[in-house]
Amino acid sequence: MTSTIIKNGTIVTADLTYKADIRIEDGVIAEIGPNLKGGTELDATGCYVMPGGIDPHTHLEMPFMGTYSADDFDSGTRAALAGGTTMVVDFALPNPGQSMLDALTMWDNKTSRAACDYSFHMAITWWGEQVFNEMETIVRDKGINTFKHFMAYKGALMVDDDEMFSSFQRCAELGALPLVHAENGDVVAQMQAKLMAEGNDGPEAHAYSRPPEVEGEATNRAIMIADMAGCPVYIVHTSCEQSHEAIRRARQKGMRVYGEPLIQHLTLDDSEYFNKDWDHAARRVMSPPFRSKAHQDSLWAGLASGSLQCVATDHCAFTTAQKRTGIGDFRKIPNGTGGLEDRLPMLWTFGVSTGRLTMNEFVAVTSTNIAKILNIYPKKGAILVGADADLVVWDPKRGKTITAGAQQSAIDYNVFEGKEVMGLPRFTLTRGQVAVEEGAIKSQEGHGRFVSRPPLTAPAKALSTWKELTAPRKVERTGIPASGV
Amino acid sequence: MTSTIIKNGTIVTADLTYKADIRIEDGVIAEIGPNLKGGTELDATGCYVMPGGIDPHTHLEMPFMGTYSADDFDSGTRAALAGGTTMVVDFALPNPGQSMLDALTMWDNKTSRAACDYSFHMAITWWGEQVFNEMETIVRDKGINTFKHFMAYKGALMVDDDEMFSSFQRCAELGALPLVHAENGDVVAQMQAKLMAEGNDGPEAHAYSRPPEVEGEATNRAIMIADMAGCPVYIVHTSCEQSHEAIRRARQKGMRVYGEPLIQHLTLDDSEYFNKDWDHAARRVMSPPFRSKAHQDSLWAGLASGSLQCVATDHCAFTTAQKRTGIGDFRKIPNGTGGLEDRLPMLWTFGVSTGRLTMNEFVAVTSTNIAKILNIYPKKGAILVGADADLVVWDPKRGKTITAGAQQSAIDYNVFEGKEVMGLPRFTLTRGQVAVEEGAIKSQEGHGRFVSRPPLTAPAKALSTWKELTAPRKVERTGIPASGV
Amino acid sequence: MTSTIIKNGTIVTADLTYKADIRIEDGVIAEIGPNLKGGTELDATGCYVMPGGIDPHTHLEMPFMGTYSADDFDSGTRAALAGGTTMVVDFALPNPGQSMLDALTMWDNKTSRAACDYSFHMAITWWGEQVFNEMETIVRDKGINTFKHFMAYKGALMVDDDEMFSSFQRCAELGALPLVHAENGDVVAQMQAKLMAEGNDGPEAHAYSRPPEVEGEATNRAIMIADMAGCPVYIVHTSCEQSHEAIRRARQKGMRVYGEPLIQHLTLDDSEYFNKDWDHAARRVMSPPFRSKAHQDSLWAGLASGSLQCVATDHCAFTTAQKRTGIGDFRKIPNGTGGLEDRLPMLWTFGVSTGRLTMNEFVAVTSTNIAKILNIYPKKGAILVGADADLVVWDPKRGKTITAGAQQSAIDYNVFEGKEVMGLPRFTLTRGQVAVEEGAIKSQEGHGRFVSRPPLTAPAKALSTWKELTAPRKVERTGIPASGV
Amino acid sequence: MTSTIIKNGTIVTADLTYKADIRIEDGVIAEIGPNLKGGTELDATGCYVMPGGIDPHTHLEMPFMGTYSADDFDSGTRAALAGGTTMVVDFALPNPGQSMLDALTMWDNKTSRAACDYSFHMAITWWGEQVFNEMETIVRDKGINTFKHFMAYKGALMVDDDEMFSSFQRCAELGALPLVHAENGDVVAQMQAKLMAEGNDGPEAHAYSRPPEVEGEATNRAIMIADMAGCPVYIVHTSCEQSHEAIRRARQKGMRVYGEPLIQHLTLDDSEYFNKDWDHAARRVMSPPFRSKAHQDSLWAGLASGSLQCVATDHCAFTTAQKRTGIGDFRKIPNGTGGLEDRLPMLWTFGVSTGRLTMNEFVAVTSTNIAKILNIYPKKGAILVGADADLVVWDPKRGKTITAGAQQSAIDYNVFEGKEVMGLPRFTLTRGQVAVEEGAIKSQEGHGRFVSRPPLTAPAKALSTWKELTAPRKVERTGIPASGV
Ligand SMILES: [Zn+2]
Ligand SMILES: [Zn+2]
Ligand SMILES: [Zn+2]
Ligand SMILES: [Zn+2]
Ligand SMILES: [Zn+2]
Ligand SMILES: [Zn+2]
Ligand SMILES: [Zn+2]
Ligand SMILES: [Zn+2]
Repeated sequence: MTSTIIKNGTIVTADLTYKADIRIEDGVIAEIGPNLKGGTELDATGCYVMPGGIDPHTHLEMPFMGTYSADDFDSGTRAALAGGTTMVVDFALPNPGQSMLDALTMWDNKTSRAACDYSFHMAITWWGEQVFNEMETIVRDKGINTFKHFMAYKGALMVDDDEMFSSFQRCAELGALPLVHAENGDVVAQMQAKLMAEGNDGPEAHAYSRPPEVEGEATNRAIMIADMAGCPVYIVHTSCEQSHEAIRRARQKGMRVYGEPLIQHLTLDDSEYFNKDWDHAARRVMSPPFRSKAHQDSLWAGLASGSLQCVATDHCAFTTAQKRTGIGDFRKIPNGTGGLEDRLPMLWTFGVSTGRLTMNEFVAVTSTNIAKILNIYPKKGAILVGADADLVVWDPKRGKTITAGAQQSAIDYNVFEGKEVMGLPRFTLTRGQVAVEEGAIKSQEGHGRFVSRPPLTAPAKALSTWKELTAPRKVERTGIPASGV
Repeated sequence: MTSTIIKNGTIVTADLTYKADIRIEDGVIAEIGPNLKGGTELDATGCYVMPGGIDPHTHLEMPFMGTYSADDFDSGTRAALAGGTTMVVDFALPNPGQSMLDALTMWDNKTSRAACDYSFHMAITWWGEQVFNEMETIVRDKGINTFKHFMAYKGALMVDDDEMFSSFQRCAELGALPLVHAENGDVVAQMQAKLMAEGNDGPEAHAYSRPPEVEGEATNRAIMIADMAGCPVYIVHTSCEQSHEAIRRARQKGMRVYGEPLIQHLTLDDSEYFNKDWDHAARRVMSPPFRSKAHQDSLWAGLASGSLQCVATDHCAFTTAQKRTGIGDFRKIPNGTGGLEDRLPMLWTFGVSTGRLTMNEFVAVTSTNIAKILNIYPKKGAILVGADADLVVWDPKRGKTITAGAQQSAIDYNVFEGKEVMGLPRFTLTRGQVAVEEGAIKSQEGHGRFVSRPPLTAPAKALSTWKELTAPRKVERTGIPASGV
Repeated sequence: MTSTIIKNGTIVTADLTYKADIRIEDGVIAEIGPNLKGGTELDATGCYVMPGGIDPHTHLEMPFMGTYSADDFDSGTRAALAGGTTMVVDFALPNPGQSMLDALTMWDNKTSRAACDYSFHMAITWWGEQVFNEMETIVRDKGINTFKHFMAYKGALMVDDDEMFSSFQRCAELGALPLVHAENGDVVAQMQAKLMAEGNDGPEAHAYSRPPEVEGEATNRAIMIADMAGCPVYIVHTSCEQSHEAIRRARQKGMRVYGEPLIQHLTLDDSEYFNKDWDHAARRVMSPPFRSKAHQDSLWAGLASGSLQCVATDHCAFTTAQKRTGIGDFRKIPNGTGGLEDRLPMLWTFGVSTGRLTMNEFVAVTSTNIAKILNIYPKKGAILVGADADLVVWDPKRGKTITAGAQQSAIDYNVFEGKEVMGLPRFTLTRGQVAVEEGAIKSQEGHGRFVSRPPLTAPAKALSTWKELTAPRKVERTGIPASGV
Repeated sequence: MTSTIIKNGTIVTADLTYKADIRIEDGVIAEIGPNLKGGTELDATGCYVMPGGIDPHTHLEMPFMGTYSADDFDSGTRAALAGGTTMVVDFALPNPGQSMLDALTMWDNKTSRAACDYSFHMAITWWGEQVFNEMETIVRDKGINTFKHFMAYKGALMVDDDEMFSSFQRCAELGALPLVHAENGDVVAQMQAKLMAEGNDGPEAHAYSRPPEVEGEATNRAIMIADMAGCPVYIVHTSCEQSHEAIRRARQKGMRVYGEPLIQHLTLDDSEYFNKDWDHAARRVMSPPFRSKAHQDSLWAGLASGSLQCVATDHCAFTTAQKRTGIGDFRKIPNGTGGLEDRLPMLWTFGVSTGRLTMNEFVAVTSTNIAKILNIYPKKGAILVGADADLVVWDPKRGKTITAGAQQSAIDYNVFEGKEVMGLPRFTLTRGQVAVEEGAIKSQEGHGRFVSRPPLTAPAKALSTWKELTAPRKVERTGIPASGV
């Protein structure tokens, strides 16, 4: 077979920046060094060669009210590759009472056309002995080390504190990592009802019904439960200072807590919901909703200082037609926005170009950190010999104005419409296959493979050692009860 | 009728310290000034004359597993008066499904022998239309403006977030104040089960099962719910930095949140649970449990800086015999400790004498602040003409060593046993009646009356104005959906 | 002599709201009660009767570059009374090397036309044995218990940490309270020079040269020095979250720290400096400068929660002509804005009417709290028999649009120009003299008297007890050095 | 020449743990892979192969009152190697008025016997045009990118805020990093004098004279100055929560601030100063002093969460005889303790073995992070082909009890005396030379070389971009002054 060689680029990883060429063989990095020759050459002159992005949070072809989120593993992974992302992690969502194994099969069936690698988080949507037992199978046999918990979506996906504690304890035993969608579902449901009763039925009421306090509270609660159960915890879509504060407060006590801002929350704000155009506002409906600008500063600082670890998209795209289900009742607007194609260019433009982040931090928060958290580093998220050749050749001089008309996603709009970005892939490679070349999509349906993720990361093991060391000790007493006053 | 005159003392209130005599007529302060004459004179030379203490948190004759807490309104109010406290606020606890009006009648029946004035908080132990409706009656007709919510005691008193939000909203409408016992009951129950399963069945496991994090989380949650519902909130028995931090964080955003440390948590620590004597440890079992010394500093600072408002006792006394119900299973140890007689002397000794608090702050946190919060100021908690003559003539030179043998409480031990206090009542007066004189108890059974408390404090009204001003506003749109990208 | 009776009003104090009439005799409150009769009656129907405002921070007739701040004790106290303020505390500023006693005489000479009562803070502008010694005289003989320290104005008023520590220690000994203008003068001076060098010579550069971080740092430093010296500390013109955060952080450790926001910082923001009109911007030049809106929320919350204690003005008015001294060099724009007449109406309108503050809190932060801090309560800041009849009869239905044309201040503009306020004095009384009646000024030149303030407040004494209790203890060793490894 | 091969070990870096052998040639890592053969083999079976430690903070042969700190570059680097540390960074300290270039020459002269690599920080001990100019030479020609500033040691090394701001600005221009010893020197000097005056002359008074508040204040101030000057800042020997809090607060705003706890502060506490043996206490005298245990938790959590970056020693060893200079006056006790040999074993034992840190974090905080901060990564702090073969083969089963008798350091005691550590070097290699083998020291005098460090790290460049983007902008005005009110 022939090699591919990436020539004349500057390699940028989470901790290094240096000039070198890369030889790829069999989809894997075979050699890194100067002046490599032989095989197909990809010219990276003037470019940064970085690990392809990993998006740890997508919902492709997710069932919703008799239909599905509009991007499936075909269009979704194409969008990912177009934007320099080479792996997505989706969520398998069992129905109440459904076996997790069944659910996983259902979800796995959707992936046949995936153009890049993928993995799954498993959701805990109900609790019982079967769930308790299947968690072990999921971790040991199915290559999944993360379990998602929804504190919102009452009556649907939501679990209560009792179930969370049970599940988190099980995660601690298995060396798995709980993920949490942190919003207080009880309060959201009540506020939704109140707003509707008052005639507040538009998309802005979606934001009113789940303010930052509601997210901050749930984040704080999830962290406490994880601390008591003795496991790390990962908060998805951290959108606001309140939630970030809870994460920081835990981390400053040494707790192993991770936070994941979305590119949407970093760059868009809640003024979108006040747009006079219902469609415009409804297209931005997601949970948590966009926040005021002050929250953006908090999130950016978190990425720079390390209190937040990764930038995701929660890509869950619905067409305008689907969004219109919620006319007259904002609660029926399907929750979700797109972003898979835009995450890297937006983050580069508003993060690296402004000096908020270094290039190395860009790599850390788009791939390396999550690869470590998900225990797939350095197979993914690294530029090392032996690592998968999931790479993006990043051209900092290549720009565009984001527009729905030019996107890979199946939907008819883009929440970043009109944003000018500078910094785009010259090439995106998925396990060595050139999926994108100067804007041309050359991805292959079905090229993507499931990425298996083992449990027991180093932090989880360390935490478990510490928890054992500091566990409650019984006071030994003789003759109980003993003496007097 | 004859006057009583308190002569030659120094009056100390929450904001004044000055020399003056006080004339009392018909149980009410009739005159304050120099050289008052006529009537029975009480010599206050060398003493501070202060408003009698108000203990906002007692459980007298509370039903428990077929028996009752050991101090009833007789011994309880005697203990109160002996220690300079002239009013107690107890809790009416409806059974699940029981009418609040019925419960109130049951509780009211216990008070016939009360020697000092009293009032009731009403507990929300279940939710439904009947509760919603009766809350108005309780507030408008029954003179009760506070509703207690238990976030712990799962399967018994505990309410969930949904119920709390409903009740808090109702409080907002009625101008009532929700009180919260803040511990995460789900997590406590699970941790209790785990500890028992591991053989940790002693009193120390009680503390292990409800660490500060569990209280801090619930406090944080209660505050968020109150903020969303638009009412102030009062956290009972704030025992630790975690809970205090949540309170401070809310207050620094302008939220109307109150915290109540107990004299026990201010002066006793969790080393008590490690006593080799099971009885010793079990007698200290209460919820939240005693904490490590670092938490005490936090609470004292909160009193001095105003982030915590009042010192209570949660007086709920059980005899050693009752405590022994829990041999072999700490979950069955009745929760509660005494303190009614010791609150003021202990706080004076460890607060005022050390310089942590001024005398004025002592008055503020033992009576005035809670009188304002409960909307009974200046009838109670003040030394003003027209105010009830609930007074303590405090002798800073009078000391003793606390011991169970000499106490009014019906139980056979005292958690402060052996503490040396300096500062005791020379006289305690309840509406002018001299109930204590130099250690001699002269209280009258049945002298105590119910104190009616109207709703709508100034902070509650201000908050409601602010919430209205900043309420969600509907975006007016024409032709939905409209246009666009 | 004849009485004055305020009839039919609602008395509002820092902790009470009730209907009663007030009889005034000899400038003092003689009686409070229903249906008082006899003497001149002032109709307070529909009004709130409150303690007159105390402005703890003014600079009347302050020397500046060969001229003086435009309002003297005549126009300044008239402005005060017009706005419901009945006492001002000004600053005596010794020149370097000048005796404090001389300085006090100079300042005292300015007060002959004062229409309301006043007092002085003494500034520590240099250090030496003479200053050390005179501080005692100032406190014991001159009725001044506060010493001001400037951490900014390098080369002029500024003192360094060494001098501050020395002075604070002396304050601790004398029971006096240090006040601090907290901005890092070294850094300000350097940034000013840098901005000028870059051509940034306009009024906006004034704000650029002293950002919130510079104030927060100095506040934090002053607090630490006070803590080490063992005295309370009062931070003047707390303008931003950074400074407020330092205050909160100290208070939550139990430190006795006070913060004073100005009405300007509560209601005006830094966008004023970007006005295209140089005059407009220059007229708003003061130190600290106005801040962004986010800081206002912090300050309002501090007033509601008690982490900030009083609202002042730092009234230091310069005419447009005076301001123009700084054309071409913002460093020469005289620092200062007016506000004496506007403080109460602005605070009522944006504080009480919005629900951010209760009426009682309004009284607390405009008079009562500072009266306690300055140890002149209840002579001032109270409505009690025996207190000075410094009163404002506040008409919540009386409104106006603030405009320079109608003000008492001698200057030709008003920084609140155009603000609509609702809530104004119907009457202002200074020691019983009706100085304002429905907008008509009836004040008497020379009516004002110096208010003597004794040292040793209760918090200062308590702190000193605590510091003694926790003072360093020597380790007793025999045979030094003793033994081996 | 021949290769050295490290066989059968597990490589542990800051982000990877994997089995591989390492081939070393010419002092550099030549190959990493399985089953390497040829050359001298070092058996790493059962061991972790990690980058050798870098100690960024030592004072070898530092002049002190006519004598020198007891460990020079000979014994000091031997101690380092014995404990697995393969590089030290020392401080060149110019006398007041002395050229930095002269000082550097003096310091460089001491290094001829160094057994491992070293570098220098340059101290700013005075300010002037010469210093300003020489800073550029130091950075561009001398391979030094860090400048140390002392906020304490008044009258000796201390610089004031003005000088710090000037120097920090210069650092910003040059892309250099300021380091700060953060204690308020003015306050320390005053408190020292006060303690002496009160007869507190023992070593415990050293601790009394510089409490955590004094360090926290200075840290906060240094950070503000760096923020204003536009450069990152590195706080040396962060010993307490107060200082750590200031660092966290800055980082949560996105500031580029680094903190360096010492192994002493992580594991020893201030009870040492209360030892009845004067020698015992005096030997522990260093600045900042040891703190109470609560501070240790803060520091450990900072290492785990990333708010603190590296563990150093501030190794500055004085013999008992030298320490006794301070009998009768604690101010004369030479400040400093040892730790070079003990840093890694102590951190492993109390950090990794307890589960507070992962092994990867251990590597990060002992070498990799500081290598990045000092801009010498991956030459140092990495296990990569091309990196210097500064390696430690760590045997987790090898233990000892620390005792002065067995140490390399020249002094006659050890502050860790009696501590049992588990985890020691089997081999330490400095650029391939086996300097330690199973406890036997085989180091070579003079083997060590100066490590040149270029300026302009990625964070410094990013910060500078951000500061430029957000720099003050002049408001353009025409016709100044313009219009009216
Ligand atoms: Zn979600
Ligand atoms: Zn999602
Ligand atoms: Zn309770
Ligand atoms: Zn209770
Ligand atoms: Zn000032
Ligand atoms: Zn001023
Ligand atoms: Zn140092
Ligand atoms: Zn040092």
